[in-house]
Amino acid sequence: MKALVQTAPLSLEIRNVPAPEADVVRVAFCGVCGSDMHAYAGHDPRRPTPIVLGHEIAGYDAAGRAVTVNPLATCGTCACCTSGRDNLCPERKILSMPPRPGGFAQAVSAPARYCVPIPDGVPLEAAALAEPLACGWHAVRLARRIAPLGHALVLGGGAIGLGAALAFVAQGAEAVTVVEPNAARADRLRGLDGITVADTPTAAETVIDAVGIDATRAAAFAAVRPGGVIAHIGLGGGTGGFDPRYATLQEVTFFGTYTYTAEDFRETAAAIFDGRLPIVRHLDALVELRPMIEGPAVLAALAEGRIAAPKVLLMP
Amino acid sequence: MKALVQTAPLSLEIRNVPAPEADVVRVAFCGVCGSDMHAYAGHDPRRPTPIVLGHEIAGYDAAGRAVTVNPLATCGTCACCTSGRDNLCPERKILSMPPRPGGFAQAVSAPARYCVPIPDGVPLEAAALAEPLACGWHAVRLARRIAPLGHALVLGGGAIGLGAALAFVAQGAEAVTVVEPNAARADRLRGLDGITVADTPTAAETVIDAVGIDATRAAAFAAVRPGGVIAHIGLGGGTGGFDPRYATLQEVTFFGTYTYTAEDFRETAAAIFDGRLPIVRHLDALVELRPMIEGPAVLAALAEGRIAAPKVLLMP
Repeated sequence: MKALVQTAPLSLEIRNVPAPEADVVRVAFCGVCGSDMHAYAGHDPRRPTPIVLGHEIAGYDAAGRAVTVNPLATCGTCACCTSGRDNLCPERKILSMPPRPGGFAQAVSAPARYCVPIPDGVPLEAAALAEPLACGWHAVRLARRIAPLGHALVLGGGAIGLGAALAFVAQGAEAVTVVEPNAARADRLRGLDGITVADTPTAAETVIDAVGIDATRAAAFAAVRPGGVIAHIGLGGGTGGFDPRYATLQEVTFFGTYTYTAEDFRETAAAIFDGRLPIVRHLDALVELRPMIEGPAVLAALAEGRIAAPKVLLMP
Repeated sequence: MKALVQTAPLSLEIRNVPAPEADVVRVAFCGVCGSDMHAYAGHDPRRPTPIVLGHEIAGYDAAGRAVTVNPLATCGTCACCTSGRDNLCPERKILSMPPRPGGFAQAVSAPARYCVPIPDGVPLEAAALAEPLACGWHAVRLARRIAPLGHALVLGGGAIGLGAALAFVAQGAEAVTVVEPNAARADRLRGLDGITVADTPTAAETVIDAVGIDATRAAAFAAVRPGGVIAHIGLGGGTGGFDPRYATLQEVTFFGTYTYTAEDFRETAAAIFDGRLPIVRHLDALVELRPMIEGPAVLAALAEGRIAAPKVLLMP
């Protein structure tokens, strides 16, 4: 089968590679994630080349059913898995990281328990967003356990920030503001129900940092109200931006959030299917479709900030 | 009445000052807190001199009843007060901070709703520890909302760390380790049921940083297990020691914790009275009593680390 293989930093090519032999899912759409871009730049030692990236997949299983794939495989038996925190399973293995080749390919191997059927009438392009949106869904669910959501602020309007903002709306935040400095990308987010796009942060009870650099952490601490919550999804880098004195005197909670549980993934997919996450309605604004053979050019353009859509899907 | 008045940094003297006119509580014992030491050193602009410090009080109300005093007055009507987070009330005013003179004096003004009656048979010296112990009680209660306590680690064996460790035992942690580098102080903590005193941190699901400096925050992040919780009580200073990458990939929660709610204060006092917090049994090891007239020498000795007891109580 054909796959988009990363052969070295910033270098991709279409190659013939062995097709998977078991639990085959034929890939119709596979999104490009920030972590793919991190590996593309050569910054992820967990993803040595040659490698097939991509883990945001919608396609067809062996029976021809349309499915979206939870790429995070877990052991199912450890304390994390049996206590509803399977995303922290020490044996977790995500598609696109060895030993599991990713979805920038004509097919992947994904056992049936990780495949969520897509109902008739839901475009596979929308269902492919279940994975990135599940990250925000999970973060908002964790934040709700700690304090009422109140006014919500999202720093960063990429796919993760977008998912967090839509999850805030779906899970009952009083108001949702997204700060995205890229004007073209910000424009794509306007017109989403319940979401305000702003140039600067507003005070908020709940803040999601979907960037994860010193400047966004500092902005989060400056914006969060007493008793409030900061959820940190981004892995941008650095260790600064914290305000432990304010956090202590005003009981601010800062927590890291990683991917999603299997239940979060299913709930997110269901929320896309029934419209609580209004992806189908806004597909044109949110998603750009490109053939996989254009992968090298697409990832180069993404790396240079030349694509405004929050999500690009490759079509093998 | 007589009071121990701070007149300048590192300078205290016994003076005659006006006695309170309403809601009078005659002070029998008043503990010396880390925040008193911070103000004593001249590092707290919220406590300008001349000032009477002290807010850990047991004494007698106007009717002659033995009481311990919750020093944190709140408005009772704001969103914080009516949602069980009264410790975050924007109008909160603690004894020992203007406009409320503190407990290093023969009497303070404390309305009845802030006074918890001490049952017969409970020494007032033990009841005076309700305030510092309530800080740890509150921190452990907040941590429990987020994840099971599991193995607990406390960094710092002063009164706040001691209170946190005892609260961990009382609230069901599987094991409790306290790290205290001061050997004389560590010796005082040995022999407390359920608590191990160690020289170095152990891995833990729940960590309380009762120091709050860069080194202890770094130690907390190094010790906390995936999915675990760090509660930050200390105000030692700095902004370093954070590991946002680990926090994100392993979903670690870091939260600041400030004082206690009125309910926490009452619960802590009740736990001292009924022995769940075994202060009465260990009073000799944990508490040193000194006359208030020795206050200048006592605070100087504390500032130099020459007192091993986790808590010194002044007697007016």
